[in-house]
Amino acid sequence: MAAELEFWFDFLSPYAYFAWLRIRDLAARNGATVTPRPVLLAALLDHHGQLGPAEIPAKRVSTFKDIARYAAEHGIPLAGPAAHPFNPLHALRASLPQVAGRDQERVITTLYDAGWGRGIDLGDPTALAGALSEAGLDGPGLLAATRRPEVKQALKDGTVQAAARGVFGVPTVGCLGELFWGNDRLRYVELRLQGRDPLPEDLAMSMLDRPRGATRPASQGRGGRDST
Amino acid sequence: MAAELEFWFDFLSPYAYFAWLRIRDLAARNGATVTPRPVLLAALLDHHGQLGPAEIPAKRVSTFKDIARYAAEHGIPLAGPAAHPFNPLHALRASLPQVAGRDQERVITTLYDAGWGRGIDLGDPTALAGALSEAGLDGPGLLAATRRPEVKQALKDGTVQAAARGVFGVPTVGCLGELFWGNDRLRYVELRLQGRDPLPEDLAMSMLDRPRGATRPASQGRGGRDST
Repeated sequence: MAAELEFWFDFLSPYAYFAWLRIRDLAARNGATVTPRPVLLAALLDHHGQLGPAEIPAKRVSTFKDIARYAAEHGIPLAGPAAHPFNPLHALRASLPQVAGRDQERVITTLYDAGWGRGIDLGDPTALAGALSEAGLDGPGLLAATRRPEVKQALKDGTVQAAARGVFGVPTVGCLGELFWGNDRLRYVELRLQGRDPLPEDLAMSMLDRPRGATRPASQGRGGRDST
Repeated sequence: MAAELEFWFDFLSPYAYFAWLRIRDLAARNGATVTPRPVLLAALLDHHGQLGPAEIPAKRVSTFKDIARYAAEHGIPLAGPAAHPFNPLHALRASLPQVAGRDQERVITTLYDAGWGRGIDLGDPTALAGALSEAGLDGPGLLAATRRPEVKQALKDGTVQAAARGVFGVPTVGCLGELFWGNDRLRYVELRLQGRDPLPEDLAMSMLDRPRGATRPASQGRGGRDST
């Protein structure tokens, strides 16, 4: 049976854009399939009591320079969306299988390309519908569906399930029981698919079982549900 | 004149360990020098209102598996320190030029090797002194110096200066006016040294100047001085 790669993403993340451009070829050349799983990054960050890269001013600068370097180096179209961060809810809901159906991959590719590649406002439903229609999809119909209560709920449920599975950021790829976070780690996804995951399981477990020798004062905790 | 690579690190970070193993060769083959800059990661995280990878349970698991994979793949000794997180103050102070002097590189290499490579408790001053003495250095003398008020102050000052420069994590490398965060990004450091930094400056600046289209509710803010 073909291995399944679960691909958790939010349109907010440029690294998820880069990973989306690679994951399908990676899957195809290793006989695997890709299951896109749209999630609301803001809710994942909140669940884990974490800040996103764009919420820390110095990290925001570092991140935008990093993605500009990466795109230039790899010849990837990058204009950056018209506003950032933006409200990704409509774009994410349009990408759900309940809305996009058999066109799911095309919808995701179209929206990434339109936003990160060419610079439309990914938070604007009208702009989203326009980009989808330009690509030959039913833009107005897809966007209308994003307002259905069960669609809103499906995105929420998917996000809660991702957090429960241990997804703390995007892109994250689930592959044969392991989670891999970050575009940089697709290399390990591919090795795992090929039965060559270099993970020394015993060492990792042994390190994870070590005692804590120091903890930051509680006053510095961020109050996330899972923070300690 | 030789270019200077500033290398901000805390012994807490295994990625700084990996980067330390590479940065000196990278500098040497490009005619650059390395200036090690010990900093207290906890204070940087606090300054930026951020959690460290080991403070988010799901990310902690991901991180320890990731470093186990990386070390296995690259043949890097990795036992992981006896406790994590640990109090890195003594190890960091022993690594300051004010304490280690001309032996600075040897002190840092010895402590990384002893802790991450072989598994001593990097938070234990006696263990640190033992490891330094084994390596032919004056362990007790170095550790005694870490208790001097001006040495404590030097680490604090170095950390405050790093935060002010925009350092938000470790390892960070400063190279010809740019900061590069993460062991993964040494590739860009090397390209920059060679005059081949792929950064499209205008694009990065243009993306950084875009308006915010959405902000997480203030109740989700983490209270860091720089968080918005």
